[in-house]
Amino acid sequence: MHSFVRSLITEWRRLTLPCDGEAVVVGVSGGADSVSLLLALDELRQTKKLDIRLVAAHFNHHLRGPESDADEEFVRQLTVERKIELSVGHAKQLGPGNTEQNARNARYQFLHRTAENVGAAAIATGHTMNDQAETFLMNLIRGSGVDGLCGMRAVRLAGDVPPPSADGCEPHDAEEDEHGPLLFTTSRLLVRPLLTWAKRRDTEGYCHSLGVEYRYDTMNEDTAFRRVRIRKILLPLLHDFNPRIIETLASTAMLMQSLPDLPSANTGRELKVSDLVEIERHQVGETIRSWLSKQRGSTRSLQLKHIEAVERLVFSGKSGRVVELPGGRVTKSKGRLVYDNN
Amino acid sequence: MHSFVRSLITEWRRLTLPCDGEAVVVGVSGGADSVSLLLALDELRQTKKLDIRLVAAHFNHHLRGPESDADEEFVRQLTVERKIELSVGHAKQLGPGNTEQNARNARYQFLHRTAENVGAAAIATGHTMNDQAETFLMNLIRGSGVDGLCGMRAVRLAGDVPPPSADGCEPHDAEEDEHGPLLFTTSRLLVRPLLTWAKRRDTEGYCHSLGVEYRYDTMNEDTAFRRVRIRKILLPLLHDFNPRIIETLASTAMLMQSLPDLPSANTGRELKVSDLVEIERHQVGETIRSWLSKQRGSTRSLQLKHIEAVERLVFSGKSGRVVELPGGRVTKSKGRLVYDNN
Repeated sequence: MHSFVRSLITEWRRLTLPCDGEAVVVGVSGGADSVSLLLALDELRQTKKLDIRLVAAHFNHHLRGPESDADEEFVRQLTVERKIELSVGHAKQLGPGNTEQNARNARYQFLHRTAENVGAAAIATGHTMNDQAETFLMNLIRGSGVDGLCGMRAVRLAGDVPPPSADGCEPHDAEEDEHGPLLFTTSRLLVRPLLTWAKRRDTEGYCHSLGVEYRYDTMNEDTAFRRVRIRKILLPLLHDFNPRIIETLASTAMLMQSLPDLPSANTGRELKVSDLVEIERHQVGETIRSWLSKQRGSTRSLQLKHIEAVERLVFSGKSGRVVELPGGRVTKSKGRLVYDNN
Repeated sequence: MHSFVRSLITEWRRLTLPCDGEAVVVGVSGGADSVSLLLALDELRQTKKLDIRLVAAHFNHHLRGPESDADEEFVRQLTVERKIELSVGHAKQLGPGNTEQNARNARYQFLHRTAENVGAAAIATGHTMNDQAETFLMNLIRGSGVDGLCGMRAVRLAGDVPPPSADGCEPHDAEEDEHGPLLFTTSRLLVRPLLTWAKRRDTEGYCHSLGVEYRYDTMNEDTAFRRVRIRKILLPLLHDFNPRIIETLASTAMLMQSLPDLPSANTGRELKVSDLVEIERHQVGETIRSWLSKQRGSTRSLQLKHIEAVERLVFSGKSGRVVELPGGRVTKSKGRLVYDNN
């Protein structure tokens, strides 16, 4: 067994991922990372190491004309040859705003629809330590706080609100669009089984060992993208300081994830509604009070009725509402509470 | 009052630093940072905002020949003109090993001796947000773990175990030399009252506003030093990504400092392998680092590769093996790790 496949099954077991007849959807762009993940899972399935129904899912963004279609064709061929189920989605049109962000949203919505259709227990993506290092740096540079330094998680429950890496590769499962939040109520895992151990050269090496070509996204060379500049300019410079910089940054993100309960919810100016919904019900009020105290400089004039009004705001389900408080107000908008002084 | 002086007194009060007749020793190299700190404290003393006995302390490293002597002469003139007490120390000879490290040790020993002599309640140094950002990056790049991302503290008790910024400007109070550890038993503060708010251009600006020249250390241009490469090459690149990168990195370090302490169950001399095997895989490294930090007194010179070597020892299954570390070694024997100094 190739060491890449052995490492994958070890990680798969460590993360206690599905292995008992469940369906797993693998997002496959056609690049080395996702192709290696798909083929290694296929090998594990063929050799009966994993009992899963493997479903590849390719989303054609139609962003790069014939190149995009060639990617799709490549993934079709790859899966046909290996008798792997494939679901293909197509971008209809791009919404306004950040193209990268919209493209990612559309892709993840497609992955979730595919998983819904096949009743998959998990969606797997091919993010590597390189992606983790890049995400860490992007978050660090834009000052996204302690949360951002945690980078991506190897396993998340779909519906969790993702860490704040807006311009990163971090998927946003519960996206809000003009039709309101897209919610997934089933307990489906979003997993990145290459994240903690595989580098890009490992995924490329495994593809080479199989004699499999992979597609190369020319957008990976476009330094108009912040992530590409980080990969092409910043990381090589950091590599001069420390040749193991990818491992170092990725393991720093893992260390950050291992910290006990971060008080991140109440340190920033904004308070995430999803953070509040996840904590114990009786702690919500205390968390709100502590956050308000930091925003206002004190809890002066704050009464229980004020805290309770903010709690109602949190649990109301509606968006864009306001609670007036002594000296200021709390507004709920886009899943966040914001405090403003009068 | 100049805004620099106003910011300094605000921070001085926030940190509840001495202001009631105590002596304060200020380390003065002659550069803009330390000169601005000295002169602003002198202004606060003259205007009766602070009731302190101000003692400047200059250490002549004799590393740069006539330049070093000119620095000393500059500080003598500056303090004589303003009737500020001055204590000058001279490097005898440099020990073996890292010159930067030895120079810093000698300087801090001198600062402590001076403080001891005048019965000072605090030693103040002119570290700025720029230094904090550089320290943060140095620690991040060498993979110094969560501790390192906390950077420097604005206030420490002399004798505290310093954070691990081996090749940084982080002073080591409890230095070990050939005569054994240098310990300071009195409760004296080591303070950096510019750290959280002042940038280098602020210290230079204040000096300019007073018409005071300051000295410029040519070693600040020598890219043989890692810190200089970080300042001259890495930070300008990061500045292209985020023009407020200094503030961003410095405030990230502050955020990290505000996190609750890591669980520290591993205070004993021995670490049970079985305990390590039971905890989450990604927490093992941090547990080992934290344990080693306690055994060695600091994480100085500890790199990711050292931690990983000890991890391999833990998971190897074999018994009785040894990992060599800077200054000591870890031995696995009978299911336990033991650390011994050289």
